[in-house]
Amino acid sequence: MATEIERKYLIKEDLLNLPAEGNRIVQGYLWSEKGKSLRIRITKNKGFLTIKTGTNPLSRLEYEYEIPLTDAEELLSQCEKKIEKTRFIIELDGMNWEIDVFEGENKGLVMAEIELESADQKFEKPEWLGIEVTDDKRYLNVNLINQPYSLW
Amino acid sequence: MATEIERKYLIKEDLLNLPAEGNRIVQGYLWSEKGKSLRIRITKNKGFLTIKTGTNPLSRLEYEYEIPLTDAEELLSQCEKKIEKTRFIIELDGMNWEIDVFEGENKGLVMAEIELESADQKFEKPEWLGIEVTDDKRYLNVNLINQPYSLW
Repeated sequence: MATEIERKYLIKEDLLNLPAEGNRIVQGYLWSEKGKSLRIRITKNKGFLTIKTGTNPLSRLEYEYEIPLTDAEELLSQCEKKIEKTRFIIELDGMNWEIDVFEGENKGLVMAEIELESADQKFEKPEWLGIEVTDDKRYLNVNLINQPYSLW
Repeated sequence: MATEIERKYLIKEDLLNLPAEGNRIVQGYLWSEKGKSLRIRITKNKGFLTIKTGTNPLSRLEYEYEIPLTDAEELLSQCEKKIEKTRFIIELDGMNWEIDVFEGENKGLVMAEIELESADQKFEKPEWLGIEVTDDKRYLNVNLINQPYSLW
């Protein structure tokens, strides 16, 4: 188990140069309810199963396990809806920013995430950082599936 | 993924001699709904996470992964209710019968399961075998949690 502490931000796209290469991610949820979800993800030709619990978006328990790619494909095919996005990593001040560029029904949404060791950890805010949306549950991937950005 | 094909039976307890040693199993469900469940199990000091899908009790898809024991303990503590049982293995004719002796609210229930390679596979029926309950969904572990045997 790991406690996942992360902050999420929108970005100022005109100020951000994305790296040349990113990793495509396809994910779906076998279950999702308030404070509990089971995610199936495929990225870099690997499959992952992730259980997240807890209702505080800033800090949740996360249990992630790699599973065989064929299992992940089968389980994903049992998920009603999927999220597709490309993830770019930008290293800054020894920390990794994950920039997710969404596709499909969430096209137009670009989000930056940073993982922290404690909720009050200080870090450098790059100029391309927009408003913080950590506490806005609409931006949780599990919610973006049923209420995609394009319908807001 | 494996397709799990199994038949379940009650047993004639007066005709069955259990082996001296069995394995204690504690399990709970993080999710369970019609045709889909996520089971957390601890046995032999190991943790397992199992997704089962499909509505036919005779044949379901099963995805099982070993997970760290501490993860399994934490996830089990998040399950509202648990099943406790001891599993004895009896080998017969090259096939393994699993005899589950339930405890707690399901005390009094003893069930035999055999895993098959196909739904119509023939196998020897030992004299201690009682009526088949494969199609009786009350006997699914996932249902025994909420409607335990002692309340029938």
